[in-house]
Amino acid sequence: MTNPTAAMLVIGDEILSGRTRDANMHHLAGCLTEAGIDLKEVRIVSDDRDAIIAAVKALSETYEQVFTSGGIGPTHDDITADCIAAAFGAGIGVRDDARAILQAHYDRQGLEFNEARMRMARIPDGATLIENPVSAAPGFTIANVHVMAGVPSVFQAMVASVLPTLTGGEPLTSATVRIDRGEGDIAGPLTALAAELPEVSFGSYPFIRDGRYGANIVVRGTPAAAVEAAVERLCALFPEAIR
Amino acid sequence: MTNPTAAMLVIGDEILSGRTRDANMHHLAGCLTEAGIDLKEVRIVSDDRDAIIAAVKALSETYEQVFTSGGIGPTHDDITADCIAAAFGAGIGVRDDARAILQAHYDRQGLEFNEARMRMARIPDGATLIENPVSAAPGFTIANVHVMAGVPSVFQAMVASVLPTLTGGEPLTSATVRIDRGEGDIAGPLTALAAELPEVSFGSYPFIRDGRYGANIVVRGTPAAAVEAAVERLCALFPEAIR
Repeated sequence: MTNPTAAMLVIGDEILSGRTRDANMHHLAGCLTEAGIDLKEVRIVSDDRDAIIAAVKALSETYEQVFTSGGIGPTHDDITADCIAAAFGAGIGVRDDARAILQAHYDRQGLEFNEARMRMARIPDGATLIENPVSAAPGFTIANVHVMAGVPSVFQAMVASVLPTLTGGEPLTSATVRIDRGEGDIAGPLTALAAELPEVSFGSYPFIRDGRYGANIVVRGTPAAAVEAAVERLCALFPEAIR
Repeated sequence: MTNPTAAMLVIGDEILSGRTRDANMHHLAGCLTEAGIDLKEVRIVSDDRDAIIAAVKALSETYEQVFTSGGIGPTHDDITADCIAAAFGAGIGVRDDARAILQAHYDRQGLEFNEARMRMARIPDGATLIENPVSAAPGFTIANVHVMAGVPSVFQAMVASVLPTLTGGEPLTSATVRIDRGEGDIAGPLTALAAELPEVSFGSYPFIRDGRYGANIVVRGTPAAAVEAAVERLCALFPEAIR
């Protein structure tokens, strides 16, 4: 596999407290799979300066692309931009182009462009802006880190702005086969098949439904023909398999 | 805040590929908040030996409790137990008590206790078993790491087994106030209030609904009376606030 690698950093307390269930990670994961970029790791940290800086550094050094969500709004708990700047040793201040975008937005809406909103024009030195067609306040890219908002509609719009600028790999094809048998019965033949077909990967995701055991076997790889051939072998091994 | 700290490690490709949306993290986050244990970080890694070992070591050294989900079944991609053993430099092999639990389970079900299923009796040396009332195959605790299954019903049952054995702190009280104004209008007064009331934390979670801006302000802290007092102050600042 030579697809580019990526990681995501989710910043904010709301998922860690159980208050909300993640949506952005799920969205990005699907987009990256389509784009042929391998999401290898996700970290979720709270609104804590040291934790954010340490995670950004570690992920930025390890993976080719890093996507962050959350913490770039106008309130006191929005500290992401400052932390990203610190992680890269970059200065940060209000930038003219970002301020102009916000000024125009608030003028159109008849809202005051106050000090709190001005915080959203603070951009680390050397970053490029990420367009926000939903609520104007831009995200930014610095080095290999793409810094985006946490509000799902804004996050999704920013992902749509950023992804076309990245070089993806071959989209991974995947196919799912459901087998209504305990994983323990599937494991032996599946292990042998996986060893025989190293060009695809087999993931086994067990479930219990109405008190009965089964597993979804997900076959992933490129090209699509290799995945299809693997699925046919799998179905031949397990006559009860349902595609 | 002197509550114990915790982290979670989710192991497996299914969330990273976008195939499934997380459920276990959301469940654990809620349980820990109730128990007065602060979930500070979550990491999601793929079925990759080096990634799992590195994450387990880092989280185990940093936080008081670590909870893992996934990768303890019978198939070839279930490598969690071996990785945890390696992270702690512990041996691993089939353990008599775990084998007896599984043997009894498969005898009851009339299923063959085959080599693949025997893998689930492999437990790192020095670990204690975590009961699995759903599908028998036990989880285990070694040092401060609690290793649990990825199937949500099993994960939840194991969390219920483990949590009463841990010492929690004071459950954090939280209250949510909805303010139908842009975060930029809320930020100034909110920042001042947050500075005045350091005993509670204020999180601001903006949303856009039907094209209109608003934010949920979540007040968290102990004791409950401090949270209540902070909510009253917040509602006095923003007459449109909805509790």
